[in-house]
Amino acid sequence: MTDRQANNAMNESLWTISETSLDPQGQHHAETIFTIGNGYLCTRGALEEGYAGDRRATFIHGVFDAAPIVVTELANAPDWLPLSVHAAVAGAGGALGPYERFSQDRGQIAGYRRTLDLRQGVLTRRLEWTAPTGGRLALTFERFAALDQPHMLLLRCRVVPDLLGRLQFRASLNGYAHNDGLLHWRYVAQGLDPASGAASLHTRTRHSGIDLVTAMRLVTAASAEHSRAYWDTENAPTLVVEVEAVPGQEVVIEKYVAVYTSRDAPAGQLCAAALGAVSAVPGWDAAVAGNRAAWETEWERTDVEVEGDDEAQIALRFNLFQMLIAAPRRDDRVNIGAKTLSGFGYRGHSFWDTEIFMLPLFTYTAPHIARNLLNYRHRHLAGARAKAQANGFEGAQFPWESADTGEEVTPTWVPHSADRARLVRIWTGDIEIHISADIAYAAHQYWAVTGDDAWMAAKGAELILDTARFWATRAEWNAAAGRYEYRDVIGPDEYHDHVDNNLYTNRLAQWNLQTALGVLDWLRGYAPERAAELSSQLDLGPERLAHWRHVIDKIYLPAAPDGLLEQFEGYFQRTDVDLASLEPRTKSAQELFGIEGVADTQIIKQPDVLMLLYLLRDQFAAAVVRRNYEYYTPRTDHTYGSSLGPAIQAIMACAVGRPDEAYGHFIRAARADLRDVRGNAGDGIHGASAGGTWQAAVFGFGGLRVTPKGWHTEPCLPQHWRRLRFRFCHRGQPVVIDLEHALTP
Amino acid sequence: MTDRQANNAMNESLWTISETSLDPQGQHHAETIFTIGNGYLCTRGALEEGYAGDRRATFIHGVFDAAPIVVTELANAPDWLPLSVHAAVAGAGGALGPYERFSQDRGQIAGYRRTLDLRQGVLTRRLEWTAPTGGRLALTFERFAALDQPHMLLLRCRVVPDLLGRLQFRASLNGYAHNDGLLHWRYVAQGLDPASGAASLHTRTRHSGIDLVTAMRLVTAASAEHSRAYWDTENAPTLVVEVEAVPGQEVVIEKYVAVYTSRDAPAGQLCAAALGAVSAVPGWDAAVAGNRAAWETEWERTDVEVEGDDEAQIALRFNLFQMLIAAPRRDDRVNIGAKTLSGFGYRGHSFWDTEIFMLPLFTYTAPHIARNLLNYRHRHLAGARAKAQANGFEGAQFPWESADTGEEVTPTWVPHSADRARLVRIWTGDIEIHISADIAYAAHQYWAVTGDDAWMAAKGAELILDTARFWATRAEWNAAAGRYEYRDVIGPDEYHDHVDNNLYTNRLAQWNLQTALGVLDWLRGYAPERAAELSSQLDLGPERLAHWRHVIDKIYLPAAPDGLLEQFEGYFQRTDVDLASLEPRTKSAQELFGIEGVADTQIIKQPDVLMLLYLLRDQFAAAVVRRNYEYYTPRTDHTYGSSLGPAIQAIMACAVGRPDEAYGHFIRAARADLRDVRGNAGDGIHGASAGGTWQAAVFGFGGLRVTPKGWHTEPCLPQHWRRLRFRFCHRGQPVVIDLEHALTP
Repeated sequence: MTDRQANNAMNESLWTISETSLDPQGQHHAETIFTIGNGYLCTRGALEEGYAGDRRATFIHGVFDAAPIVVTELANAPDWLPLSVHAAVAGAGGALGPYERFSQDRGQIAGYRRTLDLRQGVLTRRLEWTAPTGGRLALTFERFAALDQPHMLLLRCRVVPDLLGRLQFRASLNGYAHNDGLLHWRYVAQGLDPASGAASLHTRTRHSGIDLVTAMRLVTAASAEHSRAYWDTENAPTLVVEVEAVPGQEVVIEKYVAVYTSRDAPAGQLCAAALGAVSAVPGWDAAVAGNRAAWETEWERTDVEVEGDDEAQIALRFNLFQMLIAAPRRDDRVNIGAKTLSGFGYRGHSFWDTEIFMLPLFTYTAPHIARNLLNYRHRHLAGARAKAQANGFEGAQFPWESADTGEEVTPTWVPHSADRARLVRIWTGDIEIHISADIAYAAHQYWAVTGDDAWMAAKGAELILDTARFWATRAEWNAAAGRYEYRDVIGPDEYHDHVDNNLYTNRLAQWNLQTALGVLDWLRGYAPERAAELSSQLDLGPERLAHWRHVIDKIYLPAAPDGLLEQFEGYFQRTDVDLASLEPRTKSAQELFGIEGVADTQIIKQPDVLMLLYLLRDQFAAAVVRRNYEYYTPRTDHTYGSSLGPAIQAIMACAVGRPDEAYGHFIRAARADLRDVRGNAGDGIHGASAGGTWQAAVFGFGGLRVTPKGWHTEPCLPQHWRRLRFRFCHRGQPVVIDLEHALTP
Repeated sequence: MTDRQANNAMNESLWTISETSLDPQGQHHAETIFTIGNGYLCTRGALEEGYAGDRRATFIHGVFDAAPIVVTELANAPDWLPLSVHAAVAGAGGALGPYERFSQDRGQIAGYRRTLDLRQGVLTRRLEWTAPTGGRLALTFERFAALDQPHMLLLRCRVVPDLLGRLQFRASLNGYAHNDGLLHWRYVAQGLDPASGAASLHTRTRHSGIDLVTAMRLVTAASAEHSRAYWDTENAPTLVVEVEAVPGQEVVIEKYVAVYTSRDAPAGQLCAAALGAVSAVPGWDAAVAGNRAAWETEWERTDVEVEGDDEAQIALRFNLFQMLIAAPRRDDRVNIGAKTLSGFGYRGHSFWDTEIFMLPLFTYTAPHIARNLLNYRHRHLAGARAKAQANGFEGAQFPWESADTGEEVTPTWVPHSADRARLVRIWTGDIEIHISADIAYAAHQYWAVTGDDAWMAAKGAELILDTARFWATRAEWNAAAGRYEYRDVIGPDEYHDHVDNNLYTNRLAQWNLQTALGVLDWLRGYAPERAAELSSQLDLGPERLAHWRHVIDKIYLPAAPDGLLEQFEGYFQRTDVDLASLEPRTKSAQELFGIEGVADTQIIKQPDVLMLLYLLRDQFAAAVVRRNYEYYTPRTDHTYGSSLGPAIQAIMACAVGRPDEAYGHFIRAARADLRDVRGNAGDGIHGASAGGTWQAAVFGFGGLRVTPKGWHTEPCLPQHWRRLRFRFCHRGQPVVIDLEHALTP
């Protein structure tokens, strides 16, 4: 190997995730981390031919359907993956023996390797399989969702047989895809298009009535093909191709799939669109090239380079990849769910995870995507207004969980995990109200970073003003204490619910009201007609604005005199437990103490006061940051608490000048899914952690700060990092930050 | 037509249910009433080739699987019905055109008639279909579940084409059967048996882990067969047969299906059993003959003949047929659900509907079936004891809803019909406690009618004694009033819940305790060792028995002084509404007044006091019966209240000598499903109404009474009935009752 080759191989290895054995116990985790996608849809890394107990799934943005208890969920789309390989050995006289179906749970496997190429989003599986009856096949499967052609899915299988006989390939579209047993689709129609030889399947969601047509075309070298059949099995159309098998002679089969839904085009046009798309594929190599070029553009904007820490480098790219495949590029009617498009967890619902944890990546590197995501919230102002009104408030109260309609879709009750006859009340949809300020914050941040005044005037201002209206009417006047309060809420730390005056909530509400006044002032100058329109529409008369100022002035912000902030009123009266003394542990503090037990302590699930200090960093003195960092850090369940915590904790460790402590938190966030730190990665990618990992690198170690005056960095690299290089876009200008670290001798 | 032929045709028509057009709006109702079965399973009357929006289902006794909210439900078994017919017309030169798939929603339909032959359980559909492109087929489909071979399902399709070309038949087994979108099955394996040409499918319930193997074999006249293929589509194996089509020349295809589950045999033996069974079918005619002979035996025991009222005659047979196809003949681990095996309603759960409404039919005509059903309760004493213990009582408290484990499976909360975010608490599982006495009553009735002392000693006594233990500990002593009470219960009338001292409950509890003392006395003489064993096991010492006597003596039985019984304490204080003044109406009183509104009135959903008078008729003077009949009848929501009511109301109308008033109630019960009186027959047969219809005929019009001294009849036929003839079995002796009615001139 030359140096250059070695260097290339090394570079390659910094762009790949791989496994060298298939662990049946870990298959759901593997399915999650080998997810591919293109921002239109994602497909979990299940095997083409299936595997017992797999949780195969393709999720398409916005394709929701009603479900018991969880209200609505992303419907697992008709399965486009199925491609099974069968081999028959010719006996004496040429008669074929029975077909043996290739499956990884039968026969012998050698040389197995599965690799996800993050640079171009291609998943490859290679192995040698010896059938129970003896024939041997070398198999390579490749798949990707074309980033440049969002409706196109491509799959290729290459087989080198070590036998004389015949190979059979069966490729299906399976309309019986389900969500853990729940079928969301009804069969509508299917057929074989005589002109192209493509098969199509038309299905419709059972409740939301979304039409979906998927089509497939199979391509082999014509000379190799022995026969071709179509099995018209209802709801699972199947193409069957037989090819002569000659020892050592490679057989290649390509499956081109297209997917269109009635969210994309009128239902009557879907079939023609899907058949047209699969017919138009120019060939595997050309499709690969188009996809690769699109990915190059993405990475050019997004990549973060780390020298001196290969694990961090790969993990960062992995987390960025997960964000990129989930990001809606052409659709502003959808958001990113807490588990992205990679698993069944949280049913595709969106939380504050988007605005606070994922959105900054896009705001800084891909404003067009950030704008799509914020437009989703703007489109659903009606739902937020309806929620506020139903609760007796004015303005916009955004749902804690949001799906396709903008209505609150948090389940109100869920079955108890130990006793299905009992129900557990879920309160977040009722009282975790901080999300409305989080959305306003994200809108403002987008404006501050991009300088997109037109958007702020058209949409952002309305988001910020109408959430402010909510906060002002939701504030309760405590006459005895002469202050406004927000009682009975849940803050970011969900170990403590039904608390009064959560500082994060109160302070962000105050910020939202202050910012609304500022935005309104700005708008009166920038676009007076729009300001007048909004003032009229939202009834922003002098009396209301005076009330806002009164709330801003008199909102209660719990704190101790010495700069120590109180997470919520009465927090310091809770039992102070030495969390370190419980180590080593394998369970969360909530599991150890119980739901009510942990609420009686000061143990917190994730940074809450520190989260506030992070978001409003300019408003707090360094000494206050340090004091609170020191108080809350040992009281936080970093290891088994919220997956949202570590990235923020890392940033705040940098803020107090502790880069190596920060690194421990950063790498915990970066590993969340790759190493399945919490044991639930099988349910899907922890999107907030993935987005937070980027923030920890850029805002933590990189120390990037955007202020009204511009941007600057206050780097704080871990000891062993030699270099950190990243890009962002400041008010339309691309910026490259390249930080080198002189290693201490 | 000769007289004899005319007579036969007339007789035939008294044994058939038919329709002459397919109503897409009413297809779920039609599926229910055209259900076939054999006591092992039932299959709804969906079409072989499918129809948009159908609710096709096969339910097998005991094959339950977990489901959200409803706890557990009968899993819709893999679909054995699919058989589609395709016709291709040969053009000039013999080249075949494309296949047209026969479907009732395309092309032209003529001469449609669907007929259920109640005498032998065969469903037949005939029609002529003209394809959109012009070819014409005369089609006949026949199906039945063999009563003599409970694992065998047989289906035949005869086609007379009016075209030259080819017919294609596709027959599948579909493992993707689901319950309104919920898939209960996982695919395990499938294959084609080379020896027999039969295909098999092996699936397993997702949660309860029940294995099921189904196999199919297709038979055509060998000379007619052009080609045969097997589509090995996963979870939907399909056999495809092509036959030459010659105008006027009938083509016959037979599909033989077998089903075995791991409830029948070890999982490893199921495939061989199913393949063996389909291979062993001697042919259609022989299978029909075996089935017919088995049905003859059933009807010989069960038929009720009415002369002078063809509608009543057919409806009675229809209701009896529904009972017969749902009755477990070879399995005492299962019960009959409220909707039998004919629909998704109530999820296959069993209620008091079995013991009080359905069981008498079997107790009187087929004691072996009644014994199976009672053994089911005996097998689940452990669950009833656990329920009592969990509630702080001793003895056996049977669940209000029961499935496969004997645990309470009543949902505790269900989503609100108008607002899915809201939940409605279902209280029946907590406080509708009368079911424990209903089961004791049914056990005692079985003993009284059959004289089966061995069963009473082995099982019945334990049921009656342990429910008595429950009642004694559940009774609350009201020291102030010097009486025992049962507070916070629901009686049979569910318009009033959370009531105190429901007379039906209190009096049946008293009866249960009295009967337990009597049974214990009897057992001490009949089987002293068993009496000693039970006394020890159930702790039936002198103190406990003294307490029982005290409860019997001091139980509160609310009544007015003039013989008017009070349904529950305070009932007479509720608003007395003139229900007749609300006529004509199309809604239940509960819908008109609201759940709480109707509870404030004296309107009742079904007879409650009258139900008690029916069950314990010997204990009440004729004047008391009449007084209460006159009071409660006009206050009962006969038309839109409970479907359990009309049959009992009919019996009590006979008891007060009003046969024609009784007839109105009887025919309402008899028509419940045939005419879809309540609009919900699509959810399945109203099993209690079906069983009650028999009781109304036999105990009402026939006036049959079994007492310790023997039996007698007090007939009370409707004016227009010329004759009523039925059979029953008294203490092992078959009895034929033949009542003739001299019509009044």
